[in-house]
Amino acid sequence: MDMLWSGWGDPARATPLPETVIGLLRDLLGVKPRESAPVALEDLAVPEPDLAPDARRALADALGGEEHVRTDPETRVRHTRGKSTPDLLRMRHGDVTDVPAAVVLPAGHDEVLAVLRVCAEHRLPVVPFGGGTSVVGGLAPERRGAFVAVDLRRMNRLLDLDPVSRTATLEPGLRAPEAEALLAEHGFTLGHFPQSYEWATIGGFAATRSSGQASAGYGRFDEMVLSLTLATPEGTLATGRAPRSAAGPDLRQLVLGSEGAFGVITSVTVRVRPVPRTRVYEGWHFASFEQGAAALRRLAQDGPRPTVLRLSDETETLIGLAQPDAIGSDAPQPAGCTAVAGYEGTEEDVAHRRERAAAVLRDSGGTPLGEEAGRRWAHGRYSAPYLRDSLLDAGAFAETLETATYWSRVPHLCAAVRDALTRTLTEAGTPPLVMCHISHVYENGASLYFTVVSAQGDDPVAHWTRAKHAANEAILTAGGTISHHHGVGTDHRDWYVREVGPLGIQALSAVKRCLDPEGLLNPGVLLPTD
Amino acid sequence: MDMLWSGWGDPARATPLPETVIGLLRDLLGVKPRESAPVALEDLAVPEPDLAPDARRALADALGGEEHVRTDPETRVRHTRGKSTPDLLRMRHGDVTDVPAAVVLPAGHDEVLAVLRVCAEHRLPVVPFGGGTSVVGGLAPERRGAFVAVDLRRMNRLLDLDPVSRTATLEPGLRAPEAEALLAEHGFTLGHFPQSYEWATIGGFAATRSSGQASAGYGRFDEMVLSLTLATPEGTLATGRAPRSAAGPDLRQLVLGSEGAFGVITSVTVRVRPVPRTRVYEGWHFASFEQGAAALRRLAQDGPRPTVLRLSDETETLIGLAQPDAIGSDAPQPAGCTAVAGYEGTEEDVAHRRERAAAVLRDSGGTPLGEEAGRRWAHGRYSAPYLRDSLLDAGAFAETLETATYWSRVPHLCAAVRDALTRTLTEAGTPPLVMCHISHVYENGASLYFTVVSAQGDDPVAHWTRAKHAANEAILTAGGTISHHHGVGTDHRDWYVREVGPLGIQALSAVKRCLDPEGLLNPGVLLPTD
Repeated sequence: MDMLWSGWGDPARATPLPETVIGLLRDLLGVKPRESAPVALEDLAVPEPDLAPDARRALADALGGEEHVRTDPETRVRHTRGKSTPDLLRMRHGDVTDVPAAVVLPAGHDEVLAVLRVCAEHRLPVVPFGGGTSVVGGLAPERRGAFVAVDLRRMNRLLDLDPVSRTATLEPGLRAPEAEALLAEHGFTLGHFPQSYEWATIGGFAATRSSGQASAGYGRFDEMVLSLTLATPEGTLATGRAPRSAAGPDLRQLVLGSEGAFGVITSVTVRVRPVPRTRVYEGWHFASFEQGAAALRRLAQDGPRPTVLRLSDETETLIGLAQPDAIGSDAPQPAGCTAVAGYEGTEEDVAHRRERAAAVLRDSGGTPLGEEAGRRWAHGRYSAPYLRDSLLDAGAFAETLETATYWSRVPHLCAAVRDALTRTLTEAGTPPLVMCHISHVYENGASLYFTVVSAQGDDPVAHWTRAKHAANEAILTAGGTISHHHGVGTDHRDWYVREVGPLGIQALSAVKRCLDPEGLLNPGVLLPTD
Repeated sequence: MDMLWSGWGDPARATPLPETVIGLLRDLLGVKPRESAPVALEDLAVPEPDLAPDARRALADALGGEEHVRTDPETRVRHTRGKSTPDLLRMRHGDVTDVPAAVVLPAGHDEVLAVLRVCAEHRLPVVPFGGGTSVVGGLAPERRGAFVAVDLRRMNRLLDLDPVSRTATLEPGLRAPEAEALLAEHGFTLGHFPQSYEWATIGGFAATRSSGQASAGYGRFDEMVLSLTLATPEGTLATGRAPRSAAGPDLRQLVLGSEGAFGVITSVTVRVRPVPRTRVYEGWHFASFEQGAAALRRLAQDGPRPTVLRLSDETETLIGLAQPDAIGSDAPQPAGCTAVAGYEGTEEDVAHRRERAAAVLRDSGGTPLGEEAGRRWAHGRYSAPYLRDSLLDAGAFAETLETATYWSRVPHLCAAVRDALTRTLTEAGTPPLVMCHISHVYENGASLYFTVVSAQGDDPVAHWTRAKHAANEAILTAGGTISHHHGVGTDHRDWYVREVGPLGIQALSAVKRCLDPEGLLNPGVLLPTD
């Protein structure tokens, strides 16, 4: 199944907002119904593919057949940009300027190498395409003109499973549920459940350093990776020979987060774990974000570590975005903040961790809200992007951004970003609701995930661009990182350059020139073009 | 205090081998007493320092005084090479060909930058020098001629401590016990206890991806590092802005393991943990290495994870090197294998983990040997290098090497390396004792640490070089990494190049050219010279 071309996920799962919510948006944020419907797919003015016949022929040869080189308008539209709110708004307005000239479908590492050779010969920029869920402009190369999207969906095999070492080698085009299904046949799970879970791919997780909702227990995706194979215009880079090594710099960590700018990831070996026999999620109430954050910090630093650990701030708790399904329901919302703690594992392990964690949470001022609150969170854990589609349909603007910092800086960073977003959007005439939650915890710090909802106003993309830039400035000034799990893409690149500093960018650019001397891989993504 | 120039550590702690051990070495391995004593420090023919007067003056200016540029023979000898057995044998024979022209002592990051500028101007290769404990040729640059050793001992401050985030920023010249003492004033520990603990430095741990004996609980050093500052000839590279980030490749992991080839590490921010209130170490007996390895794997994969977890093979258990102090004692040695499991933390945490781990170890066939066996291990945990000095004095050869692999490959890798060492040294007329232990465990694999003892024979360095090369080949063929925690240096470089592959080496060389365009930093260490 394909995703909705101008929105998120399965079109059948889209549901309109209840009238109560529409009323709330109108009264609270001045949201007005949209005057015109989005452009229909068949009405898009998709330009003819600007692909020379000999390039097309060479690509078909590299892929063993014409059918793996797609140039029809619908396929190309479905590979245009990602799923940030500005991406969706542009698509809804019929803006298809970032459409690829062709979409190619390689079946394996050698075919990817062959495609890269053809593209190098014909000077065609290349955009690796997994689930298409980038929210940072990672799929729209900066250099205009014809480019080729390399869709990895045919590379969807479990290549190897070592049950003794508990490792699995996966192809990059596997969507997360497909990977989980293949692993489950052997009793294993990856344990990686980001909000994009239903659509995002293994290759994308690696390329962007994805982090899942159960990262407290299973770790970030980059912590699961043991080795990667990267196809580059200069050949193959195979990294990771042992679980851990002192043999030089860790080249795996140079491929992870490289966002297609260094090559196409063609296989990923990950650690896997036994499918948990028990899963329990429960809600906790805290009087304030500060109190809740202190409780999460205690668990992250001294344990026991839940598998899932999240905390919504007062606004998010009130709005109920912590449980998207509860929006507009009559369920009473407590004042203060709601946290979710989840436990996955064996019965004994879950019972023991849960009991001890509960003692810490109580001792930190928490009040248990029971498993129903946890079930609501689990039920709605992948729903927020669908909710966004409904909000856009209703004339509202909704977007998210995230950062991370050390524990001691969390309060200041949270306030600085909230203030920047509120100030900028209010000045633009669309005062927002800004919600924040701690989505991932570490011994030394945490991520902060912000959700912004406002009226669309007359030019929502321009409004948001200003607000987002102000948030980026606030993040850098307050000592946060420009992205905790969405990546850099083109949207964060200029701030990323400042975060890493000139010598860091020079070193990464040197690596890029080495692996991609023509600068054809995702130009402008991650690193500035020359 | 300085280390013994031709051996390990504090000269006062050296103790001669008991007669019983000397008899054992003679009967078992044909070890004959040495015919001549090692050369004395004052009898070394140290060449005059080949340092132009203007270079010397510029270095003194950069460092704020003549006293920080040392060219006296003793200081230069004490900065010659590292502490591998071939290094020690060469020193004992009076071979000081690798002596630096000068030893400089910067007091901070800016002085390191200034030194690097002077060295670039005068084309002087630079060797960063921490504790001087390299055992892989990491301190002897390949290019002959005058070079400067940058001794970091004056950079020994705790720069920052954040008790909320539990992070500490340390200067690179701090020896591990100095760092622990500074952290202990605030109630914290780093938890990094490699065999070189008493002498090695924070900068060296980072530059070589050190791993400590308590890595099961505290992690490897590279896992503790949150940010680093690197002084390079091209300026400063500051990496690591948040505990975790999705902002591009992880540049920290490019600095970690760079072994002075990319720059001089001038500060390291690490995670710290509360000083444990309780420490318990205990011994366990297993019928075989295979049985013990399976038990360790269960704990590493399913928990609970001890803080220390090690397993000696049958030979090492028999010889008693697992408890070096027990050598030559009348303590009965059980057949089979001995493991050490240690627990550090709060009373409650230690009691709980220990009880549950004991159940797993018993269920895996283990028999508890009690805390006395654990105490013996803890007492002797830093003694093996002193024992090596005594063995060399007695005419024996002793050296170690290590690798790591996935659990499913552990048995084959262990046998392959043991066979390569035994075969080569037997052919050379000095049949060895080869002992092995699992020194570090991970979910997906483990390290293997080999100790080799033989007679010195007529040319021990040449014999060992052949044996070591055969072991390196066996490691690569059996799928291991060329180093788990010693690093690459010059000794492992040619195998490292094969492990990483041509494109990986090209990428790293591109980074080196970017940061060190003249190729003056530790030339030949890690990467081949052009």
